[in-house]
Amino acid sequence: MLHTPIKNIGMAGLLDRIKNLVDSEFISEEINNNLLKGISDDSAVFKNFPDRIQFLTSDSFVEGVHFDLTFTSMTHLGWKGVVASISDIIAMGGTAVYLIISFCIPQKISIEMIEEFYKGALQACKKYRCKIVGGNSVATAGNFVINITAYGIGKAEKVFYRNGAKINDLICVTGHLGASFAGLKILQREKKNFIKEKENFKPNLEPYKSALEKYLMPKPRVDIVNLIIDNIQINSMIDISDGLAADVHKICKESNVGVELWEHNIPIANITKRIAEEFSENVIDYALYGGEEYELLFTLSDSEYEVLENLTSDVTILGRIVENSKGINFIREDGESEPLQDGIVIKGDFEKDK
Amino acid sequence: MLHTPIKNIGMAGLLDRIKNLVDSEFISEEINNNLLKGISDDSAVFKNFPDRIQFLTSDSFVEGVHFDLTFTSMTHLGWKGVVASISDIIAMGGTAVYLIISFCIPQKISIEMIEEFYKGALQACKKYRCKIVGGNSVATAGNFVINITAYGIGKAEKVFYRNGAKINDLICVTGHLGASFAGLKILQREKKNFIKEKENFKPNLEPYKSALEKYLMPKPRVDIVNLIIDNIQINSMIDISDGLAADVHKICKESNVGVELWEHNIPIANITKRIAEEFSENVIDYALYGGEEYELLFTLSDSEYEVLENLTSDVTILGRIVENSKGINFIREDGESEPLQDGIVIKGDFEKDK
Repeated sequence: MLHTPIKNIGMAGLLDRIKNLVDSEFISEEINNNLLKGISDDSAVFKNFPDRIQFLTSDSFVEGVHFDLTFTSMTHLGWKGVVASISDIIAMGGTAVYLIISFCIPQKISIEMIEEFYKGALQACKKYRCKIVGGNSVATAGNFVINITAYGIGKAEKVFYRNGAKINDLICVTGHLGASFAGLKILQREKKNFIKEKENFKPNLEPYKSALEKYLMPKPRVDIVNLIIDNIQINSMIDISDGLAADVHKICKESNVGVELWEHNIPIANITKRIAEEFSENVIDYALYGGEEYELLFTLSDSEYEVLENLTSDVTILGRIVENSKGINFIREDGESEPLQDGIVIKGDFEKDK
Repeated sequence: MLHTPIKNIGMAGLLDRIKNLVDSEFISEEINNNLLKGISDDSAVFKNFPDRIQFLTSDSFVEGVHFDLTFTSMTHLGWKGVVASISDIIAMGGTAVYLIISFCIPQKISIEMIEEFYKGALQACKKYRCKIVGGNSVATAGNFVINITAYGIGKAEKVFYRNGAKINDLICVTGHLGASFAGLKILQREKKNFIKEKENFKPNLEPYKSALEKYLMPKPRVDIVNLIIDNIQINSMIDISDGLAADVHKICKESNVGVELWEHNIPIANITKRIAEEFSENVIDYALYGGEEYELLFTLSDSEYEVLENLTSDVTILGRIVENSKGINFIREDGESEPLQDGIVIKGDFEKDK
């Protein structure tokens, strides 16, 4: 047997290979008819009862890849895990109802830490009205791993896929971008300072509060999804968990279209700009590749946008969907066009610091 | 904050603490009414559409805890993972329909290995008619971890919980016990021999074939569940994944009853006895604590049993449910009674060999 390293094709490439294998296996006519979306979107979508749409999604969070316990409390981690999971259902137009949370637990994790995790998770559950219905824990000699499965329901006529973007659609985003990554940068810097200065260390996190909150306690955009469901028609949607650039690529790939993304339109909060300046880094990179935003990225016609803009000021036009042959391009402020890079996710920078 | 090691209360104790936390949080009347079973059974069970019962369950499989890649091929692992997951739904009377498979992947795992895993998983999916509908992969510096979520459907009047056992019920099991663990023992011995003798090593696995098959390619007992659903009424059921003793304890704890389990009734195949003899070990321990059987353990009245015994010869009476105050006891062949030990699972013996 050959042994080709996964890094040769990346996790996205691996998923394509898996999708091909799975799709090539015919199980039954009934299952094929009821499955509206298998591998390749935020959630699986199926309709095995008349007029009822259901969603199922599962996410893993690995210590050292997705989080660092030295600056993320278990309570925040519980909140974030639940939000990340239900956001995958919300971004498709559904409502999360039930969750299953499982752990691989190394020895250093105590009972109280797991209880703190659940306190954060339950806060998010209470706010977004979903219930934890199961889970199992396994002792491990490896990393701390959390797996969350979310099940949700929705209306058949209001399911939003990645693959519905149409040529000439506007591509829009909710909220502001880059703040979650900016918050992470601050926490990573303070960790380094703490290691260097030990007991003399006095962190001052107050000026960065809104960025830290965006990183530690993100909010899924239920408000905007509900506005959309009740009032307008959109053609595609995804939540920004892997960074704007990667998620724009996913919409384009699945919809078989290209895009023009305009730098000067990207909504960035002042605090995010200030943090990028402190690090002498380009804030646009934070917005494009930062990830863990849980804002919504969606495409719709000009006329539908006109209705939406009267209902909320929290949506920004980022660009326009174009023909596939024109490619996926980023138009800089000076008008220069360049291909928008895919596959760069700068959120998981934890290993470097160790 | 206190830091109490989880080993002080064990994973089962931790689950009780989690269940208390989760149950104390009221989410909504609707969710409470629709949720028939949350944490504490093989699967969560809910009824959010009229007359339709749904099941949801999630399981993690950790290298070094649940499997050893030196003697379990990726194809077998894929098969086993799917079977273990759908067995949790089958044991409650449901039919698994959709699966989500996620991985934490260390560098040593190649693309081809993941594809082999899917070949095994898809074989099981084809046989048991369920479809893989999603998944995500994360690179990890730690162990190889597989998480499988299974979703299933069933009939409202035929859901089998752990907590329905009634005093005077017979407690029965399908198939034979201990063979899966016996197969694992052989594989672990051959691994040691291989390490010692290197290229001179010639394994002879042929005499142990049926035990190895039970370990590497277990079958969920869809046949017996269907017989039960179509013909009789049972009061409680669980699949034996953690070993007969642990799973008897779960039924008794959830049903608030005691049990008398009779040693001389435990069904054990000849090959399992021979393997235990080779290791000079007690084959009864294999049957009680071995785990990974995926046979069904259930309780029912004498009259229902009479109907069942005319339909299949593959069910054995193991003992009788008694009052809670009488305890959970194991009656040895000589008539001596002793408390049946809980919490011992001997399946995950991998770390010791390293």
